[in-house]
Formats: sequence, structure tokens, C-alpha cells
Amino acid sequence: MRRWCLRKYKENIMINEIYTRRSVRNFKPDEISDENIRKILSAGLSGPSGHAAHPLEMIVIKSREKMEKIATFFPYAKFAPSAPVAILVCHDLNRCAKLMQGNPQLSVMDAAAGIQNMLLMAKSMDIGSCWTHAMLTPNEYKELCNLPENIIPVACVFFGYTDMPGKPRDKFNESRVHSEEW
Amino acid sequence: MRRWCLRKYKENIMINEIYTRRSVRNFKPDEISDENIRKILSAGLSGPSGHAAHPLEMIVIKSREKMEKIATFFPYAKFAPSAPVAILVCHDLNRCAKLMQGNPQLSVMDAAAGIQNMLLMAKSMDIGSCWTHAMLTPNEYKELCNLPENIIPVACVFFGYTDMPGKPRDKFNESRVHSEEW
Repeated sequence: MRRWCLRKYKENIMINEIYTRRSVRNFKPDEISDENIRKILSAGLSGPSGHAAHPLEMIVIKSREKMEKIATFFPYAKFAPSAPVAILVCHDLNRCAKLMQGNPQLSVMDAAAGIQNMLLMAKSMDIGSCWTHAMLTPNEYKELCNLPENIIPVACVFFGYTDMPGKPRDKFNESRVHSEEW
Repeated sequence: MRRWCLRKYKENIMINEIYTRRSVRNFKPDEISDENIRKILSAGLSGPSGHAAHPLEMIVIKSREKMEKIATFFPYAKFAPSAPVAILVCHDLNRCAKLMQGNPQLSVMDAAAGIQNMLLMAKSMDIGSCWTHAMLTPNEYKELCNLPENIIPVACVFFGYTDMPGKPRDKFNESRVHSEEW
């Protein structure tokens, strides 16, 4: 009985964190501690990786100057200067799984799975986040962070505390679910 | 104080689920209830989606015949017949975000984020999972599930109960983390 209760509690927390996560673009000025940033990074690096390639590299950005620059070159991140921290998630072309004739799709999926871990980890600490697609302006991010040729920016994820209440939202949609075949 | 304790509890559960998730390829024969399958699907469909495109489509596979077929055409899923359920996660090319000149990369990332939600949701219910890359044999999956031209298989994720204990594993790696720039 005790085990059943614990399992149910765990399940309810997971479903609640998944249903209440939102993109946050308005952060409080409070800093995020290095300990909490480490937990978020660690969640990102602890995601699954196709054929154990583990191609991810993380750049932690706190510089106000860099945040202002991001806001100027990336139209979907005008809110960047309000975020205390951003993590630029990249993958290393030299470490991508050798399965698709050089197509780095598996690495990009590793990045996305890692990012989702980061969003949920942050959420569980009441830290809001916004995932933006760095691959839309790769050269600007490469220049901003002095990235070598083989390091490809995938996403710039912004983190910060927020007041957002976030009512649970279940996006289950019967029309998107098929039994056995189309 | 009470609020702090609750937050800490939530955070510890999230970190534990992320650190103990593993690819499982050896399932018990116990069925997964439709209620639990719905929760997993719902977690998958409740992930973030670039520019709110929400391009995902899910095919729930339980047929033994289909599982046997998957094991024959996909070398990384020889264990398929031992899984009570698989979910083929696809995206709809007609609904992908119109940002990268027809490159469906954003949709593939939506799929990966949704899949990571599914793995963690399952994990929180003590259900094991294995994410395999359906994009390595797309035509075989298209034929298996009678998919229209515009529906692209991304991953086939297998689910089932398991005995695997799963010690927490933190994959934080200092050499993969950079401050401000490379």
C-alpha cells in the first residue's frame, strides 16, 4: 500500500510538471544559484542519446552584454535581457552517431530530449524557461560564443524565476492518436 | 516552510526520475492499462512545440504480428515482441513550422521533446521504455502502419513493465560545460 501511494505521488507530480510547464518570457530579476544551474545542466546531459554518442556541449551565458546582443540579432528572443541565465545547447558534429550518412538528425534529437529534461528540471524548482531555436541564426551564435566549426548551436534556452501560475493543461487530442494504423 | 518542503520534494522526484531512466529492452508480460497508455500519449502531446505547430501524430501498436514484423525489419528492435505496447511517433509534414524553408527540423525536435515527456511519464509509473529511431527505416514503418505520404515516422518507442532497479546516474561532465564562450 505504501509503495502504491509513493508511486501514485510520483506519477501525479510528473503529470503536473508536464501539464503546467509553459514558455516564460518575463522573468524576475532574482539570480539562479550555481547549484541550481548545475542541476539543470546535469538534467540536460543525462538525457538519452542515440547509440550513446552523447554529442552535447553547453555554453552558460550570464553576461548582460551578450543577452543584449541576442535580443538584437534574434527576433524571437527580444526578452533575453530580462533572463538571468541562458544556456546555449550545441552538438559536436565530430561526435554525432554514424548512422545517417553524416546527417546529424540523431544529435539534434539528443539535444531536444536533453532540453526537455532541462525545462522539466527547472520547472520542478519553480524556475521558468523559454526554448528558442538557435539554429535559425547559427552564425550569430557562433560568433557570439566563439564556437569552433564543428560545434553547432541548436537552441538557446532562457531561465529565470517567474510568478506565472500555470494551470495544468492536458493537450491530449483524440484525432492525433491512431490504433495500429492510420 | 511547508511550501519549501513541497518544492524540495518535487525537485528530488524530478531529478531521481531523470537520473534513473534507462533504455529497457526486456519487459514483463503484464499489459499496460488503456488509462496509463493515455497518460503517456497525453504527456507526449503536451510537450512544447516550436511556433505552436503541434505536428505530432501517434500510432499505438499492440498487435503481436506487427511487433514480430518490426523485429525482422529493424535490427535495433529485435526485442519488440516482448513489449506489450509500442507508440510510433510521427510528424505531419503539412503542419511543420514554416521557418526553415521546408526543413522539418523543428518538427523533429518537437517529436523528441514529446518523446522525452513520454519516457519520464512512463518512468514515474514504473513503466520502462526504449526509444528507437524509426527514421532509419521509414518506408518499412510507413508500410506497416499504412501512413500517408505526409506522415513521417520519427521514433518507435516501446513500453512495458520491468524489474530494472536503475541506480541514479548523473551524467554531468565538466568538460562539456563552458562559461560565456568556447
